[in-house]
Amino acid sequence: MTRHRVIFQPSGRRGEVEDGTNLLDAARNLGVDIESICGGKGTCGKCKVRVEEGFFEKDSMDSRMGHLSPLTGQEMKFLKPSDGPAMRLACAAQVHGDVKIFVPEKSRAGKQIVRKAAKELSIAVEPAVRKYFVELAKPSLNEPITGDFERLREALRRQAGVDALSMDFPVLRDLQDAIRKGNWGVTVTLWKGREIIKVEPGFVEAAYGLAVDVGTTTVVGYLTDLATGKVVNTGSMMNPQVPYGEDVMSRITYAMTNEGGVQRMQKAIIDGLNEIIANVTKDLRINGGASGGEAIVDLTIVFNTAMHHIFLGFNPEHIGRSPFIPAIQHGIGIKARDLGIKINPGSYIYVLPIEAGFVGADNVGVLIAEEPYNMDENVLIIDIGTNGELLLGNRTRVCSTSCATGPAFEGAQIKMGMRAAPGAIEKVRIDPATKEPLYKVIGKEDWHTRVEKIDAKGICGSGIIDAIAEMYKAGIIDKSGKFDMTVKNRRVRRDHDGKPEYVLAWAGETSIGTDITINQGDVRALQLAKAALYAGAKLMMQKMGMEKLDKVILAGAFGSYIDKEAAMTLGMFPDCEIDKVYAVGNAAGDGARMALLNTSKRDEAEQRARWVEFVEIAVEPNFEREFMQAMHLPHMKDRFPNLKKLLEKAASPVVING
Amino acid sequence: MTRHRVIFQPSGRRGEVEDGTNLLDAARNLGVDIESICGGKGTCGKCKVRVEEGFFEKDSMDSRMGHLSPLTGQEMKFLKPSDGPAMRLACAAQVHGDVKIFVPEKSRAGKQIVRKAAKELSIAVEPAVRKYFVELAKPSLNEPITGDFERLREALRRQAGVDALSMDFPVLRDLQDAIRKGNWGVTVTLWKGREIIKVEPGFVEAAYGLAVDVGTTTVVGYLTDLATGKVVNTGSMMNPQVPYGEDVMSRITYAMTNEGGVQRMQKAIIDGLNEIIANVTKDLRINGGASGGEAIVDLTIVFNTAMHHIFLGFNPEHIGRSPFIPAIQHGIGIKARDLGIKINPGSYIYVLPIEAGFVGADNVGVLIAEEPYNMDENVLIIDIGTNGELLLGNRTRVCSTSCATGPAFEGAQIKMGMRAAPGAIEKVRIDPATKEPLYKVIGKEDWHTRVEKIDAKGICGSGIIDAIAEMYKAGIIDKSGKFDMTVKNRRVRRDHDGKPEYVLAWAGETSIGTDITINQGDVRALQLAKAALYAGAKLMMQKMGMEKLDKVILAGAFGSYIDKEAAMTLGMFPDCEIDKVYAVGNAAGDGARMALLNTSKRDEAEQRARWVEFVEIAVEPNFEREFMQAMHLPHMKDRFPNLKKLLEKAASPVVING
Repeated sequence: MTRHRVIFQPSGRRGEVEDGTNLLDAARNLGVDIESICGGKGTCGKCKVRVEEGFFEKDSMDSRMGHLSPLTGQEMKFLKPSDGPAMRLACAAQVHGDVKIFVPEKSRAGKQIVRKAAKELSIAVEPAVRKYFVELAKPSLNEPITGDFERLREALRRQAGVDALSMDFPVLRDLQDAIRKGNWGVTVTLWKGREIIKVEPGFVEAAYGLAVDVGTTTVVGYLTDLATGKVVNTGSMMNPQVPYGEDVMSRITYAMTNEGGVQRMQKAIIDGLNEIIANVTKDLRINGGASGGEAIVDLTIVFNTAMHHIFLGFNPEHIGRSPFIPAIQHGIGIKARDLGIKINPGSYIYVLPIEAGFVGADNVGVLIAEEPYNMDENVLIIDIGTNGELLLGNRTRVCSTSCATGPAFEGAQIKMGMRAAPGAIEKVRIDPATKEPLYKVIGKEDWHTRVEKIDAKGICGSGIIDAIAEMYKAGIIDKSGKFDMTVKNRRVRRDHDGKPEYVLAWAGETSIGTDITINQGDVRALQLAKAALYAGAKLMMQKMGMEKLDKVILAGAFGSYIDKEAAMTLGMFPDCEIDKVYAVGNAAGDGARMALLNTSKRDEAEQRARWVEFVEIAVEPNFEREFMQAMHLPHMKDRFPNLKKLLEKAASPVVING
Repeated sequence: MTRHRVIFQPSGRRGEVEDGTNLLDAARNLGVDIESICGGKGTCGKCKVRVEEGFFEKDSMDSRMGHLSPLTGQEMKFLKPSDGPAMRLACAAQVHGDVKIFVPEKSRAGKQIVRKAAKELSIAVEPAVRKYFVELAKPSLNEPITGDFERLREALRRQAGVDALSMDFPVLRDLQDAIRKGNWGVTVTLWKGREIIKVEPGFVEAAYGLAVDVGTTTVVGYLTDLATGKVVNTGSMMNPQVPYGEDVMSRITYAMTNEGGVQRMQKAIIDGLNEIIANVTKDLRINGGASGGEAIVDLTIVFNTAMHHIFLGFNPEHIGRSPFIPAIQHGIGIKARDLGIKINPGSYIYVLPIEAGFVGADNVGVLIAEEPYNMDENVLIIDIGTNGELLLGNRTRVCSTSCATGPAFEGAQIKMGMRAAPGAIEKVRIDPATKEPLYKVIGKEDWHTRVEKIDAKGICGSGIIDAIAEMYKAGIIDKSGKFDMTVKNRRVRRDHDGKPEYVLAWAGETSIGTDITINQGDVRALQLAKAALYAGAKLMMQKMGMEKLDKVILAGAFGSYIDKEAAMTLGMFPDCEIDKVYAVGNAAGDGARMALLNTSKRDEAEQRARWVEFVEIAVEPNFEREFMQAMHLPHMKDRFPNLKKLLEKAASPVVING
């Protein structure tokens, strides 16, 4: 097989690839991050790269392009005259000769800021895994011969009051030496009071657990002291499966269309998790005990159903198509060594149960963290990650559903959208009188004051919601989402295709050299996403005969960062008292932490996951009508009484805390 | 590292070995079997080899020997002038140059005849593993989403009346595809009514189990149809650990003195077991189901405690020295894949419990096969393998012990002794008048009639017992075991050291070119071995206040082949009615088969292994006196009333069925 040299700029990474490899795969192989939302299907247009001049000095532009496959019709849809003749989509261009490629800043996948800090949880510490130090009776020839396991079991019975019924096999293999090394005193790690999963010579106090939340985009692990329940370290990273597809369906498609695709993605997430484990444990100093990841003796994990299946190496094909049947709904315990996860090898990875095809273990995490089933009020819980999941109900009944919000809330499908990474505009205020904006960029402490260069690069989800809500309040768009072109302002204009747009940042304030704008298409995309949430909640309320919401909980990292007033202004959820709207942060992760700290939460998860009624919103007869209605921005004050004060604010001057 | 060429004759096997390798290891590496009872410690003198002339034509004998390390004092103890100057012990001679080695027939390890045929067992077939064919409800969008595991569990509950609580992880991984391949009909293999260890598409009737008996010398596996309980195939081999030591203590020593020794022996036995598995399953034709070893869904295994520990990869050091503490006494279930045993990977290897340091799972097999705890009579069960184990008692109480018989019953420590392999003399009759013997050789159908060359090579255990009993009855030795040199017969003579011996076969009848004799040392070795058994039984009787035996059961392959009259003549066990002495064959293997076929036998094994009282015979105060008394051959007719008719037979003519 012929191989060609490829160099990526500005990183300078280089290497050889096989003839016919596309540039996106070549970049992945060489460790170059190129943005790709569609997972290389040629439908998102985010992976634009420029074929560099000067590499083959004698070549003309034509022959230079001859080192790549010809431009496709699909690519042309995304390429603009301003891109110049050397721009290509990395996923579509195949290498047929040596090439040098420049990756523009807009196409570079930024390192997402992980905003999933661990909050204090109030929960009794009753973990599944506990340590006991016991002293064994030394054997002598004058008494009946008793095996070391039996001797240890007896010591546990007498000194710790627990009856260990079994022992992990490799632990048994090394038991005799451990006992003698500890001079007949050992620390036993016991799982659920029945299986011995570790025996350490002597007294070892510390026991750690890891609670893991695998999001479609972000993975976070909370290293927890199992004695105190405190989070002692947090590790996070981009989900290493992102290169195989940014959303759930892209990854399922990747698995179905690539031989060994599931295994490749499984390996990616497990390698990633092992990296988190190595990072969070590298500074642990445990007196006499295991070091590094081996000090972790329990692990709980949540994710959506597709990530769940891929993590476990299950073919995700069947959850990807009707009737969306998962392999298993129950929670699962799997030996760490059977998955290659580098904690104590005999420990179990506890995978929380899932509810249904599209309502996964992460939502069960939200469920047990927020406990709507213990509430008298009507509560709506919105978990916004790459998907949107809703829980609605009270102690008598709780329904769940999944909403096809699409990834607009994460900045995808938005012209200048980007993930919550440095350079992203995350907060916006617009003066209703002048239509002049103020904005705040991730990575900068202060709001943009127009005197400094702020290097904005794009807009992330919370910024888009803010911006559109402010545009609405400032009268730039109307309740249908349509631009009011009667507004005379230099920021409200038409693009070269004649479509309306609002200029949030002038090119000079950015690092990408173009104006950052929000156009009619972006407003529509956000309307579709919010309508999905709103209609879902509304239909569940109808189904449950519920008149009004007493409480709204916004969960998910994104939920903590959106402005709840902006969200209400846009009508992301049915009306509710504004001071009864709470942002709780990463509730899925909180659920994983609770399951780690308290076994009764695991039982609760198993039981409540079956008890919750999954509603398939899309098959409800009123779905289409509700969805269309929900597209509009709220305007009827009698229908949204609590919106009144919010909309009145629009007339008052913008006051911003810097 | 310098390497040298080594050739072994007469096999012609050749190859290179590193400088300093001893000839025994070189032989093993090149697949040449050299007899070694002590495991290469230089204490048995069985591995004699001759350095060949003619290989280095110009070399003198001295320079030829210079290619090997110098003769040691230890070797000189075993070498005789008749061996000639070129004879060495293979374990002591290290290679320092190219050599050609001749392995005399006496030193070649013969392929032992495995005499462990499966007998019919009468036991209810209630195995731990069963198969069920079930048809799952096909999912549709109009009903709540239910996972495939939950769907399968519900089908099992309704159609088979069992509640599967868990599933082997790799089975779960492949579940969805298996269900769809079987068009919603699958055959489920269920372990103990709770764990699903296999799911096959469609209907697969056959389910097989394997019962394994790992002896120190022999390994045998019984492939069993789990529906009918019938043995459908039997496979056996020499224990592949023999090259590391012929007896238990040699192997423990090997493990303790060689880095990685346990792992090497573990790999040897597991590879061997996999070979048996491949052999017994290669002709299985299973409609639609798994083929080869994967068709085996359950496995039970017995062995002595040392083989048990090594099989499981446990360091056998602690059972090898006082106070002889095993890692575990309970029975163990280990996933086949965790041991690398090539049956259905999710199936459990059930290792029967052990009693004490030297009374292993094999004796527990004997226990549950013979059930002394269900007997009203006083029964003595003697299991003679490479070790001797005794069970004594009745329904009120059963004691067990291990007797240091040494390996004399297997032909070791006997001058012309050998294993039960072709060429071994296995039966002997001596005419009391003429002192002329008749004998039968393994591999020949008829008794030696003095007209044909019979190619005898040595004497195996049953032959030695027969010969010495016959020598006693013919007056060649007296009750103390001493040769009566007043007997004038050319077969009763002194060897060149002046020690008495009896010539069983003249050189011309053999394939080894020397007379096969039984000498005073051999008689003493057998007396020591039988005294160990006898004193053990006697002391246990005293301990239990038992006056007489109602029944004696001889177990073990060897037990089936020794002549029970000869055994009584020698006093291998306390007196008992001759028609109440039974040979039951491989009772340990029967126990493994029963545990395979009926789970209540496993419970019985666990319970009875703890209930049996282990007696450490060697620490009993009367041990030495009893042992010394037991050295004598029986002579007091009032003490051994049942011996009377046996001894009277000595006067009648020998009648032999050809």
